[in-house]
Amino acid sequence: MANTEGYAAFGAESALRPFSFDRREMGPQDVQIRIEYCGVCHSDMHMAHNDWGRSVYPFVPGHEIIGRVTALGDQVKGFSIGELVGVGCMVDSCRTCDACKQHLEPFCPQVVMTYSRTDPKYPDAVTQGGYSSHIVVDKDFVLHVSETLDTAAVAPLLCAGITMYSPLRHWQVSPGQTVGIIGLGGLGHMGVKLAKAMGARVVMITSSEKKAADAKQLGADVAIISTNEADMAAWQGQFDLLVNTIPVAHDVNPYLGLLKIDKTMVIVGGTPIELHSMGLIFGRKRIAGSLIGGIKETQEMLDFCAEHQIVPLVEHIALEDINTAYERLAVGDVRYRFVIDMAKS
Amino acid sequence: MANTEGYAAFGAESALRPFSFDRREMGPQDVQIRIEYCGVCHSDMHMAHNDWGRSVYPFVPGHEIIGRVTALGDQVKGFSIGELVGVGCMVDSCRTCDACKQHLEPFCPQVVMTYSRTDPKYPDAVTQGGYSSHIVVDKDFVLHVSETLDTAAVAPLLCAGITMYSPLRHWQVSPGQTVGIIGLGGLGHMGVKLAKAMGARVVMITSSEKKAADAKQLGADVAIISTNEADMAAWQGQFDLLVNTIPVAHDVNPYLGLLKIDKTMVIVGGTPIELHSMGLIFGRKRIAGSLIGGIKETQEMLDFCAEHQIVPLVEHIALEDINTAYERLAVGDVRYRFVIDMAKS
Repeated sequence: MANTEGYAAFGAESALRPFSFDRREMGPQDVQIRIEYCGVCHSDMHMAHNDWGRSVYPFVPGHEIIGRVTALGDQVKGFSIGELVGVGCMVDSCRTCDACKQHLEPFCPQVVMTYSRTDPKYPDAVTQGGYSSHIVVDKDFVLHVSETLDTAAVAPLLCAGITMYSPLRHWQVSPGQTVGIIGLGGLGHMGVKLAKAMGARVVMITSSEKKAADAKQLGADVAIISTNEADMAAWQGQFDLLVNTIPVAHDVNPYLGLLKIDKTMVIVGGTPIELHSMGLIFGRKRIAGSLIGGIKETQEMLDFCAEHQIVPLVEHIALEDINTAYERLAVGDVRYRFVIDMAKS
Repeated sequence: MANTEGYAAFGAESALRPFSFDRREMGPQDVQIRIEYCGVCHSDMHMAHNDWGRSVYPFVPGHEIIGRVTALGDQVKGFSIGELVGVGCMVDSCRTCDACKQHLEPFCPQVVMTYSRTDPKYPDAVTQGGYSSHIVVDKDFVLHVSETLDTAAVAPLLCAGITMYSPLRHWQVSPGQTVGIIGLGGLGHMGVKLAKAMGARVVMITSSEKKAADAKQLGADVAIISTNEADMAAWQGQFDLLVNTIPVAHDVNPYLGLLKIDKTMVIVGGTPIELHSMGLIFGRKRIAGSLIGGIKETQEMLDFCAEHQIVPLVEHIALEDINTAYERLAVGDVRYRFVIDMAKS
């Protein structure tokens, strides 16, 4: 029964192509969702190209999924047919390990990512993501999405949004603090909006004059140029938190001097880190990592965004445009996230 | 008036030699101390050799000083003639900056280190340390030392002791936690004793079978060999805190896997740090730096050590033996700290 239509990656070198596949049968705990929008995450492109060496083909990318409930398993409570819901980067976990008990499912050793992974409960298939017409997901990994948000723009909250919300909350951003967001892209622009809504003074730190101007339009109180020595000198020791979103190899050292004593630079992008311990020892500073949040925190983030009317800035595409979108993504040509509009596709 | 006798470094290449110098005049806030013992810190040797490029010659090293009060300035309260006191790595700071207000004098931009630095109040001289007969120090940088401690062994608490106590306290070590001390030397052996006294299960992580055995004698509950894959695999995700004391360049990556989710490896030694951000992102882990503590915390540490009867394991030398001691220190041949006994000298 080939009842799901989407676009899949078939190999590291090839473009994404149309793909029909059987969606998994509904279990008693499952929610079936007709997908309306799906964000295009940078990691989708890395997985399509097998940049991390763990892609299982063919697979449908997409883990920023917004849609409406079309069917419910017998035992599902709390969701209703037609309800607006979201699915993010994970679709299951073990529920019993230390990570799961702490609502930190991303760190569960058995976490099932939304696409290109094997689900222990359905070992004959790989998981298939959101560049498709439908998805079936365990109810515990389905999020409620407020109708008050702009449905067409909300999808990237499921990955980019929670990736920024989680460290800002974990490190307890609050009014009176100065928070630096390093890098303005899909993540960075969410960081500016979220940190601002949490009451912080928000400083964008970017190498680009143009992005500095954009950041102020997004709500940053100040934007400084990371390559400008006077800017960097003026902000030494001023930051309560830095969230570094730069997704490529870069020198992290210039940013450490910006931190106050005892404060932290959180890294959310993939980058080598090379420094000398003295850069941390003087001032008792810290470098920390952060991934997406757990399901409980993701729901909290969606509710926070509804309360503060925060959605990403997006550019809509049709499913057929995905390969062009990847080409533009590879050169950073997007403000700030592509979202596939399934109705256009 | 050449009224102080000591041993000084005169240049990067030369051995330490006898040195007579005028100690500074007593101010109304000063305490004069006749030195009985002075610990030999690895950093003394680096400074003598100008390894960090900021030594001012001639200077008398030594910042783990134990002695008795021989004179008090007019306005000094809270100390008495003959009292056992200590002086550590600092002898003054500005008292007004953010760091000083937080009792974190080591991070004061104007902190005056105990030797080979200029004191803004006495700009014509460099500070002279504890390899000498006497020292004059502002009362706010003089510590009370309990007579119940072994006076002959207590000196290294002033640097090695506080360097380990500070991160263990800052990261809130408590009963029920598993704390790893990486490396067994002057710092590491204090870490084992202090973490044990705080109630933690203490694991020594060392590359040496001999040091593993020593660590157990010092009170470590377990000792594991860092180059033993089975040991390291068995302890993945088990640690609430790691304090890394390795004083030379080494690969920090194997230790990150030992941490539980959300936990920290504190680095107290000078080492390059090279890793990929993914080593921190998965598990939301942290690398932090830590230096000596402030004066308030140093007094707290001395009181804690008196309460728990903790002193370092030391080997006594005469002042004349200092060059031989440096040679042995350079090859790690000391268990675990040399202490100069001025009465022998």
